[in-house]
Amino acid sequence: MKEVAIIGVGATKFGELWGSSFRNIGIEAGMRAIEDANLSGSEIDCLFIGNMSAGRFINQKHIDALIADYSGMATKNVPAIRVEAGGASGGVAFGQAVTAVASGMYNTVLLGGAEKMTDQNDAFINTAMDATADAEWETGMGLTLPSLYAMIARRVMHEGTATREEIASVAVNSHFHGALNPGAQFRKEISLDTVLRASPVADPLGMFDCAPITDGAAAVVLCPLDEAKKHTDSYVKVSAFAQGSDTLALSQRPDITSFGATVATSRKAYEMAGITPADISIAEIHDDFSIAGILALQDLGLYKKGCAGKAFLSGETKVGGGKVAVNTSGGLKARGYPIGASGVAQIVEISEQLRGKADKRQVANAKYGLAQSVGGTGSAVTVSIMEAV
Amino acid sequence: MKEVAIIGVGATKFGELWGSSFRNIGIEAGMRAIEDANLSGSEIDCLFIGNMSAGRFINQKHIDALIADYSGMATKNVPAIRVEAGGASGGVAFGQAVTAVASGMYNTVLLGGAEKMTDQNDAFINTAMDATADAEWETGMGLTLPSLYAMIARRVMHEGTATREEIASVAVNSHFHGALNPGAQFRKEISLDTVLRASPVADPLGMFDCAPITDGAAAVVLCPLDEAKKHTDSYVKVSAFAQGSDTLALSQRPDITSFGATVATSRKAYEMAGITPADISIAEIHDDFSIAGILALQDLGLYKKGCAGKAFLSGETKVGGGKVAVNTSGGLKARGYPIGASGVAQIVEISEQLRGKADKRQVANAKYGLAQSVGGTGSAVTVSIMEAV
Repeated sequence: MKEVAIIGVGATKFGELWGSSFRNIGIEAGMRAIEDANLSGSEIDCLFIGNMSAGRFINQKHIDALIADYSGMATKNVPAIRVEAGGASGGVAFGQAVTAVASGMYNTVLLGGAEKMTDQNDAFINTAMDATADAEWETGMGLTLPSLYAMIARRVMHEGTATREEIASVAVNSHFHGALNPGAQFRKEISLDTVLRASPVADPLGMFDCAPITDGAAAVVLCPLDEAKKHTDSYVKVSAFAQGSDTLALSQRPDITSFGATVATSRKAYEMAGITPADISIAEIHDDFSIAGILALQDLGLYKKGCAGKAFLSGETKVGGGKVAVNTSGGLKARGYPIGASGVAQIVEISEQLRGKADKRQVANAKYGLAQSVGGTGSAVTVSIMEAV
Repeated sequence: MKEVAIIGVGATKFGELWGSSFRNIGIEAGMRAIEDANLSGSEIDCLFIGNMSAGRFINQKHIDALIADYSGMATKNVPAIRVEAGGASGGVAFGQAVTAVASGMYNTVLLGGAEKMTDQNDAFINTAMDATADAEWETGMGLTLPSLYAMIARRVMHEGTATREEIASVAVNSHFHGALNPGAQFRKEISLDTVLRASPVADPLGMFDCAPITDGAAAVVLCPLDEAKKHTDSYVKVSAFAQGSDTLALSQRPDITSFGATVATSRKAYEMAGITPADISIAEIHDDFSIAGILALQDLGLYKKGCAGKAFLSGETKVGGGKVAVNTSGGLKARGYPIGASGVAQIVEISEQLRGKADKRQVANAKYGLAQSVGGTGSAVTVSIMEAV
């Protein structure tokens, strides 16, 4: 298998993009990534798209063809592949694209993630998001995605591996970074008190423990590592990609205070990259709910169980905080959560950091960055490791 | 890249499977394929699933995790990837799985396609299927998938490259074979008159020109060609896989009497396999509407423009008819059209034929078989070529 490089990245602003359509934001992100790679669209051999629910949100399935068409690539019959894995859709799209280049099947590949959510009413959107839980054994019984994560939080607090304050500080960390990111949906710091006093969603989680509803798209261009220099001086190496599954229903797990798929997948990724968790300087993690941030740092081996919450609360997860800088983009909570785009936006942020282009939120001297994307309640997880060159 | 073999295939019966759920049919097909390959589920390294609309039809997204879970593979954190490309979903899943094995990323891969459609009312299903056309420029204006194909038929008849009778005979051919396939939804021959006198759907197409609404699943196991013999004596070589896109809206094409993506993709596939159309003895083509069968044979280079209709009408597309045996499974029209499963079911049929296991519909001495899967009105096309060993 060939080694793979990221030679271009791009994203739209994340937020309520009422003046733009799904196809427009998809193309905007793609074109930015292609320009960043100093390519023209005609040099792309294959497209991958991560998207969760365009079928429901904009009544458009088959968005592989939509994006190929509106990017002008359909005139060359460029193949386009849409993948979906709930919240991990973008992460899975990245993995498929990496495999396509590593295999030699395609040379220059564009991958993107996009979701247009704010044109629908909230109840409709929530139903679509809940459909990533088990329809027969969870949502069919009245459970929702927030309530499932609330049960995880409740159990974590019961076992004493994180306090309510520590869980809430995951959102504080994301907003701290969101304030530094011009592309974020929420560019405003929040206090611990704001999170703790917010209106309840599913006890103990309140409104500020939950990622928002967002429009947005992000895109990345890949090519073989040994060809990257032909296109740009500013590229990043993909050191590892791994993906893993777990039971769809939370009730089927031996332990709900840890996501087994994150544990297994990250171990595989570290091995592929030939590094240990101690080598990671930046991590973009899937904080769709604050509690997920606690689990992520622990399951990724970046902190021992019981220690992630303390790290968030103490502020050492912030840029310049000392150890691993977590969600410097603002994460799902503050950058925003356009579902299919999120896993790709994480790769964009890690790439910008490793190329020294992250401006006010730049992490100094980072060698390795990690991105973790999660579908449902941990039933699909992707872990990618990127390396500065 | 490694050469790839099909070492096991399986499918459920296609039809109105009211006694079975989506997860049950998915698992049934998968287990049959695994047993056919003389494997146990624990030997599968990665799963691919083609599905169009479980999110709408059964309120379940994230079916990658669902299938990994209910097949028992989630306990080993086996990665699972769902792809969607409208009617080409199964074909695209096959392509991604072939790439995964060819790249060396995974060794033994299970891919499946499944759709559970008959639990919903027809209007709801039709809306979901229409969502594979362009939501802004076609369905938003009142166009439907049948009416788009009707316009193609009308144009073909206007240009004189097929008559109404010739178009209708595509359905007659599929039903002839469906009667011979115990797994088909419709096991009944029909006459040309039946097709011509059926109630109209979108003029000139009537009810028998349109593939039915179906529940069903199909699955295939792949491994590197040089390891196939370790598992079974009865395997098939994958000689080529190619995929291509075209504009989403039909109005953007220079010519609607041909699918450019089929032309480009099949040329690429023949080149990869090192053969010409004359080497193909069996073809499974995407006859979601009868007119699509005419286009397919011509665009695949199996017949010249203006000749495919005559071939269907004369019966030379039937088993023993002399030239290429077309849709020996019964095709989408008579075997049934569970959308995401269809592209995989085609591979199952070609494999059974090339292994000499197609019973009453067996084509004699076939060396090469081709499968063509189509999304929307030709906006995504996959072409696979399999070879007897």
